[in-house]
Amino acid sequence: MTTTLSAAVPVDPRTSSGALRPLALTDYRISGGFWADRQRLNRESIIPHCDNSLERVGWIENFRAAARSTLATERVGRLFTDSEIYKTIEAMAWENARESAPEFTERIVALTELLQAAQASDGYLNTYYGYDGGPDRYSDMEWGHELYCFGHLLQAAVAAIRTGGPEDLIDIARRVADHICAEFGEDGRQTIDGHPEIETALVELYRSTGEHRYLEQARIFVERRGHKTLGDTMFKGRDYYQDNVPVRDAAVLVGHSVRALYLAAGAIDVAVETGDVALMSAVKAQYDRTLDRRTYLTGGMGSNHHGETYGDDFELPSERAYAETCAAVASVHVAWRLLLATGETRYADLIERTLYNSIVSSPSADGRSFFYVNALQRRAPGIDPEPGVPSLRRTDGTRAEWFTTSCCPTNLARTLASLGGYLATTDDDGIQIHQYAAGALDTAFGNRRARLDVTTTYPNDGVITVTVAETDGEEWTLSLRVPAWSKEAKLTVAGEEKLVISGTVSVTRAWKTGDTVELRLDMRPRFVYADPRIDDVRGCAAVERGPLVYALESPDQPELDLDLVTIDTSAGLHDSASDVGLEGIVPLLARGAERAIDHDDWPYSGAVPKGTNRPVEFTLIPYYSWANRGASTMRVWIPRLDVAEAEVTK
Amino acid sequence: MTTTLSAAVPVDPRTSSGALRPLALTDYRISGGFWADRQRLNRESIIPHCDNSLERVGWIENFRAAARSTLATERVGRLFTDSEIYKTIEAMAWENARESAPEFTERIVALTELLQAAQASDGYLNTYYGYDGGPDRYSDMEWGHELYCFGHLLQAAVAAIRTGGPEDLIDIARRVADHICAEFGEDGRQTIDGHPEIETALVELYRSTGEHRYLEQARIFVERRGHKTLGDTMFKGRDYYQDNVPVRDAAVLVGHSVRALYLAAGAIDVAVETGDVALMSAVKAQYDRTLDRRTYLTGGMGSNHHGETYGDDFELPSERAYAETCAAVASVHVAWRLLLATGETRYADLIERTLYNSIVSSPSADGRSFFYVNALQRRAPGIDPEPGVPSLRRTDGTRAEWFTTSCCPTNLARTLASLGGYLATTDDDGIQIHQYAAGALDTAFGNRRARLDVTTTYPNDGVITVTVAETDGEEWTLSLRVPAWSKEAKLTVAGEEKLVISGTVSVTRAWKTGDTVELRLDMRPRFVYADPRIDDVRGCAAVERGPLVYALESPDQPELDLDLVTIDTSAGLHDSASDVGLEGIVPLLARGAERAIDHDDWPYSGAVPKGTNRPVEFTLIPYYSWANRGASTMRVWIPRLDVAEAEVTK
Repeated sequence: MTTTLSAAVPVDPRTSSGALRPLALTDYRISGGFWADRQRLNRESIIPHCDNSLERVGWIENFRAAARSTLATERVGRLFTDSEIYKTIEAMAWENARESAPEFTERIVALTELLQAAQASDGYLNTYYGYDGGPDRYSDMEWGHELYCFGHLLQAAVAAIRTGGPEDLIDIARRVADHICAEFGEDGRQTIDGHPEIETALVELYRSTGEHRYLEQARIFVERRGHKTLGDTMFKGRDYYQDNVPVRDAAVLVGHSVRALYLAAGAIDVAVETGDVALMSAVKAQYDRTLDRRTYLTGGMGSNHHGETYGDDFELPSERAYAETCAAVASVHVAWRLLLATGETRYADLIERTLYNSIVSSPSADGRSFFYVNALQRRAPGIDPEPGVPSLRRTDGTRAEWFTTSCCPTNLARTLASLGGYLATTDDDGIQIHQYAAGALDTAFGNRRARLDVTTTYPNDGVITVTVAETDGEEWTLSLRVPAWSKEAKLTVAGEEKLVISGTVSVTRAWKTGDTVELRLDMRPRFVYADPRIDDVRGCAAVERGPLVYALESPDQPELDLDLVTIDTSAGLHDSASDVGLEGIVPLLARGAERAIDHDDWPYSGAVPKGTNRPVEFTLIPYYSWANRGASTMRVWIPRLDVAEAEVTK
Repeated sequence: MTTTLSAAVPVDPRTSSGALRPLALTDYRISGGFWADRQRLNRESIIPHCDNSLERVGWIENFRAAARSTLATERVGRLFTDSEIYKTIEAMAWENARESAPEFTERIVALTELLQAAQASDGYLNTYYGYDGGPDRYSDMEWGHELYCFGHLLQAAVAAIRTGGPEDLIDIARRVADHICAEFGEDGRQTIDGHPEIETALVELYRSTGEHRYLEQARIFVERRGHKTLGDTMFKGRDYYQDNVPVRDAAVLVGHSVRALYLAAGAIDVAVETGDVALMSAVKAQYDRTLDRRTYLTGGMGSNHHGETYGDDFELPSERAYAETCAAVASVHVAWRLLLATGETRYADLIERTLYNSIVSSPSADGRSFFYVNALQRRAPGIDPEPGVPSLRRTDGTRAEWFTTSCCPTNLARTLASLGGYLATTDDDGIQIHQYAAGALDTAFGNRRARLDVTTTYPNDGVITVTVAETDGEEWTLSLRVPAWSKEAKLTVAGEEKLVISGTVSVTRAWKTGDTVELRLDMRPRFVYADPRIDDVRGCAAVERGPLVYALESPDQPELDLDLVTIDTSAGLHDSASDVGLEGIVPLLARGAERAIDHDDWPYSGAVPKGTNRPVEFTLIPYYSWANRGASTMRVWIPRLDVAEAEVTK
């Protein structure tokens, strides 16, 4: 394996076929502001909370029980709990690379010892299946999640390889991968796992080890899917696990959102590494259509609670938005791969939208409770879960410490720890900055190298200043993303200001140390309107400011019934001076009306509803920050006053 | 048991406490028109189809396997399949009483013999639990459905008692009921069944046998519920099976809709028979609030596919309407009991709405396939199920022959067979006709008796003529329901016409043979508007004509994208002359526009959507008749042109 391949980077496509190349995790060091706060929260709260919880609920103990052969009587938790340990190891590995954390290094070593002791001689490793008195290996490919768990183990090992992690962990993963190739190869078991994940993991392990068999096995899994290999399900049939239509023939992402997105990421990885242009363009088209028709304003995906699945095109109810945190994480994986492959700005836009509004929304301000689902509306205050008791998924607008299926906290942890890898890229001509965070960037491109300082308080304001700290004096290109939401933007290079439009703005110069580029994005709060085919938000507006989607939450206006509020889009939006008790946010003030309802009986009437409106002012906060002040009601989409007035008789 | 108690009536509250008394099934003989057609379909297609299917899928064979003690190796189907046999027996019993059907009598006898052979010596009877090699009796109260199955067996026996059915069946049921009282009595197992049904069944058996213990056991089950006796569930916790809050403390129906409604029916039965006014008024308030905030325009209930549950107040998405056929059947049970108890017209209105729009919608025109869910919108044509293969619930807008959980076809069969029992009532002063069907009515009230002929082609037109065919010459009161939707109605008594308003119109006279009362309801098609708190249908109108909700379906306008159609409520609605290829329906013609969409990318925009509209005319058909011409798209609620115009820039 080469040093390039083992760079600390969460996704590492080989350079031959992609448009852009990823940076190593530590090339862009975040030094302050929004993302520094989240990474600190991750390091100090989220990762230790995951680790402690895994011990507390006994999911780590399962590995000890495996080593002492007592699983038959002692195993606890659902069948995929192993994967949470792997995701936590992955998070610790990235975090340790980002900023040395000896306690995480020690912990990884200790956990690796447990895995070692639990691994079978042929490489198989699972605490739910395959032991005396337990269910047989691979006896339930639909729901067993064995390859899914392996996938996360491989990802942990990939993080270890790229961050100098313990050789033992890498060995365990290689033995697992070899076992998979032996069992499921071209002539092996002709089946697939109900939950994709192994595909992308195998390609990533191939990238880090150079072992071509892993790539080939990933390719086999991708091609084997979609031929009705698995049994039918009650959740939208085999669409649920993408086994109805071959990957390269599908038109749009369907079924269980996380499964669909992990599969898409794996298929892109296979396409990139094998040069399969047809597969790449099929998955790109599927994801594009998913963005155009099956994605929430927040970037969230998955409209249906039943089966955690995508809805039909434009079926995007706010209240029943499932928008699982893990689907947002997986969507970032897909968008990042497409950004690397195509260089299209829309994918960086989508990553930003998803990070700020569907991923950062999951943890509470103290990093000790989490949203599994990220609904865009909540009508009735929920009930906070009992402390210490793992929750089911919770759909009542309250976060929980832990879940019986606890994929979201650990997925969040590995994402925040590896965030530095998703901010910028390079190509032979220079550096592209896609996401803005205060910090220092030090990276190579082609055979050259540059150092940049990024100063900004984004997303609180929209001024990003990039200063060249070190360069070789030759000409190269610095590219900055101008998000689609910024209708106007100004770029100042060497004192010269010009208007730029959304997309990628590139400046090619013989840069000198001390040169600055200043990008001013349009941070005026704005109203957003939806395609009229999205029934649930017909006649509504939402509010955004910068990359943040805003929400109306009851603690700021306890006297209002949020189901009856309308917003006056002609009255504008203003920064609010009021202290809403949430740290670091810019509240907004809006005007509208509270509708009166003249009945409380059968809710359908032959008469056009009567309209009497009481003018009101209300405060909006960033969506991600809601539900941090006790159980509340909330909505992102607010009926428009002008439309509501057209609806009624006066 | 007295003859009154054994009258052929689907629900028989004792006369002491209710406002109104039910008629025997055969007191109102339907002779033609809409309901005669459905009852013929039921007799000739639906019931035989259920019976044949039960044999074909092996669910009847399970009883034979029980008798020969081979269940351990031979049992097929999910754990509640026994109940489908019981519901089919019940349907045959009512149908046989309605119009003699020797083949059904024979079949009931044959099935009874199977039950007899399968029943344990202590009365227990279940093909899934309680045999050597099978799971233990009552080992899974949350999901086991044992008492639920017993409930349907008791209901079948009640139908047998009231229709002169086989004594053997009645004996089997009494032994089951005695077993339940012994097992679950005050000092017995302190638990309840996850699926209510036994409560109402025990009260009905009490009503038919006079055995007070059965009523007491029902009362115990109702009171025992709501104390977190059962374990937690992933479907909205214990609300799922109404075990979170005691029945008399609940504010609204929650959780699994069919469970909530069966429980409500049982609680009302207990309240009526024990004179428990507080319990009655609690359940009435819960159901009233459910009607006001958690019910679809079609009368359908249950907004969430996940757990088949009620949503929050006003959470009523059209596309994801679950609106299970069985919930509609159960809602009729509750509404009928409340009508009997209170005499309030709203419950008869709701029964009508539910029958025409949520129950009759289930069967296909040939009575051989069924909707399990009754959504109000379908965006993409579904795929017809494979013939001969039981479907899962199907949510794609196509009906299926049979389901792995096949409660809906058999529930429909027993409802249509017993429909005659839900049309009219009596009190000491006379007769109340609630539902209109051409036929002859011959019933006693107080110590008197009258015969009436009802002539009508309702719901195709709105003229109902009641002719007194026989009476004693003394004064008595004939009451007719004027549905809430009929803003104007005219009543002509002895040639004298007067305007009447919606509610109950009563005429007290010394009636003579040949006297007629003619009621003319307002059958002009009308637009209906929803409470603005129902987000999904904001800015929409629906169309109704008489008791029928209408829908826009693609086969009538294949050139239109139904997601883009708006309706012009100022242009009115007209009867359509076009032949839509559906029997016996009155199509309507409406005007509106088809919107143009100027983008096919990210569906949220900072600009108000642009509006260009192409004027169009389109046809509407009764909702119940949709999906009878191949897979299609459909919508009940249509965005209003005037509101849509206010939404856009031109």
